[in-house]
Amino acid sequence: MTTTPVAVSAEQRSREEQLIERVVRSFDTCSDPRLTELMVGLVRHVHAYIREVRLTEEEWNRAIGFLTRCGHITDDKRQEFILLSDVLGASMQTIAVNNEAYGDATEATVFGPFFVEGSPPVPIGGDISNGAAGEPCWVEGTVSDTDGNPVAEALIEVWEADADGRYDVQYDDDRTAARGRLRTDGRGRYSFWAITPTPYPIPHDGPVGRLLQAVGRSPMRASHLHFRVSHRGCRTLVTHIFVRGDELLGSDSVFGVRDSLVKDFVQHPAGTPTPDGRQIDGTWSKARFDIVLAPARG
Amino acid sequence: MTTTPVAVSAEQRSREEQLIERVVRSFDTCSDPRLTELMVGLVRHVHAYIREVRLTEEEWNRAIGFLTRCGHITDDKRQEFILLSDVLGASMQTIAVNNEAYGDATEATVFGPFFVEGSPPVPIGGDISNGAAGEPCWVEGTVSDTDGNPVAEALIEVWEADADGRYDVQYDDDRTAARGRLRTDGRGRYSFWAITPTPYPIPHDGPVGRLLQAVGRSPMRASHLHFRVSHRGCRTLVTHIFVRGDELLGSDSVFGVRDSLVKDFVQHPAGTPTPDGRQIDGTWSKARFDIVLAPARG
Repeated sequence: MTTTPVAVSAEQRSREEQLIERVVRSFDTCSDPRLTELMVGLVRHVHAYIREVRLTEEEWNRAIGFLTRCGHITDDKRQEFILLSDVLGASMQTIAVNNEAYGDATEATVFGPFFVEGSPPVPIGGDISNGAAGEPCWVEGTVSDTDGNPVAEALIEVWEADADGRYDVQYDDDRTAARGRLRTDGRGRYSFWAITPTPYPIPHDGPVGRLLQAVGRSPMRASHLHFRVSHRGCRTLVTHIFVRGDELLGSDSVFGVRDSLVKDFVQHPAGTPTPDGRQIDGTWSKARFDIVLAPARG
Repeated sequence: MTTTPVAVSAEQRSREEQLIERVVRSFDTCSDPRLTELMVGLVRHVHAYIREVRLTEEEWNRAIGFLTRCGHITDDKRQEFILLSDVLGASMQTIAVNNEAYGDATEATVFGPFFVEGSPPVPIGGDISNGAAGEPCWVEGTVSDTDGNPVAEALIEVWEADADGRYDVQYDDDRTAARGRLRTDGRGRYSFWAITPTPYPIPHDGPVGRLLQAVGRSPMRASHLHFRVSHRGCRTLVTHIFVRGDELLGSDSVFGVRDSLVKDFVQHPAGTPTPDGRQIDGTWSKARFDIVLAPARG
């Protein structure tokens, strides 16, 4: 941050640096040390950025216009600032910083805007799809702690988009579909029927979508199934599993993919016996996800 | 930007750094080199900030909420994102970067939101106040280039708040007051009657105002008179002059003050003869501002 930007005169450099120090000092009045740290760090990076790229006044104006459009499209259902944070990888970096690597604990990834509190309970082996369109997918695994002990009665909440790329909260009616919750058994095991994840775009009819278009990036998210796993004494894990072989793994629009979260979704032909004997007319898939929870902080 | 943040494990550090490189590479598809530079620089600073301050998810949420409120209060007349840029000194830094020091050229400062194109023409020695409340103030000076040659026919546009701290565009009616334009004479001289500048707050009933309050900063701007000075072959100068002795010079909410722009506004008792013989019942002030224009770029 103290690197010299493009060559400028000593007088010019002095003016730019003095300005930064004046702004930093303006927060001397702040009685909240954390807020001071957040603001001073923000100021130093914003100013370093302007100096390094030699931001033009026209570009500054366009940035103001962009933020204004993000603000105006944002409402109770649409959050363009979160989308912006997502496509800059800022959401994922925040997740990374707050879910530090701990032993073999499962990696976290972005939460996304489609979680709903209080999803329908299903028994182990139950079906969360509730009529959502898509290929049936059997998911099974265990929850354990970083010492290898099974975690019994861990709460697993799962949610996903349907085969049309829509979450139930995006339906026109109030149906609940493709989301549910269950608890591990006494040996930390769980299983449920869901639908095989398919790719879908983040909302891209607004300023963030136009930004992606301008830089030649796709709005598509790699196929995934969301998990939130919680248990007393453990760090709550928010993550996804991804589908090995999905061509979007390398270009996920929100940078949620971690290699450790890419799983085999094994395809089974129509007529193949299912794990629980359920009769399925067409094809189905099967994935395994063994989850390791870090200890709670503090 | 490549400094190590607080101590984290090698694995954690690797995860955070790999994420940044993935995001940076996502702009490889961009065919506009300047846009790529702007986005990659933004990504590097945003991620460095999150890592350095170890931004919590709660703080990230509050930032999203703050930006959302800024967006929702912004309309045709109110621009909260510009206010935010202003109080972080980002507007002033952008001005500094785009108006590089050149010889003894007069320093630029923030434009502000209250300029109006096509303000009323006044003759040299004319009065721009047009009924705006305030103490009469005679302003005189010259416009010259950085070689010391007078600039004849330079366009000078001036505008200011009235003694109640309001610009005419903030009045309830459509009156034009305390703004005007004139041209220098053949020897680069100008003069006009205005009103003595007084301090006023930036709009502080929104999220930016609450931020200033939270950090213990004042929304007040130091007293000032705006100038825009333009002439073919010269870099257009946008600046203010400030009032020496104003107690707000050290705490201007938008960091517009430059020492070189602080001028003596000499107070004259009631009854003192005025420069042009005008009869004034009360006190009046007098300021001198000699303006030096840099050559136009390119």
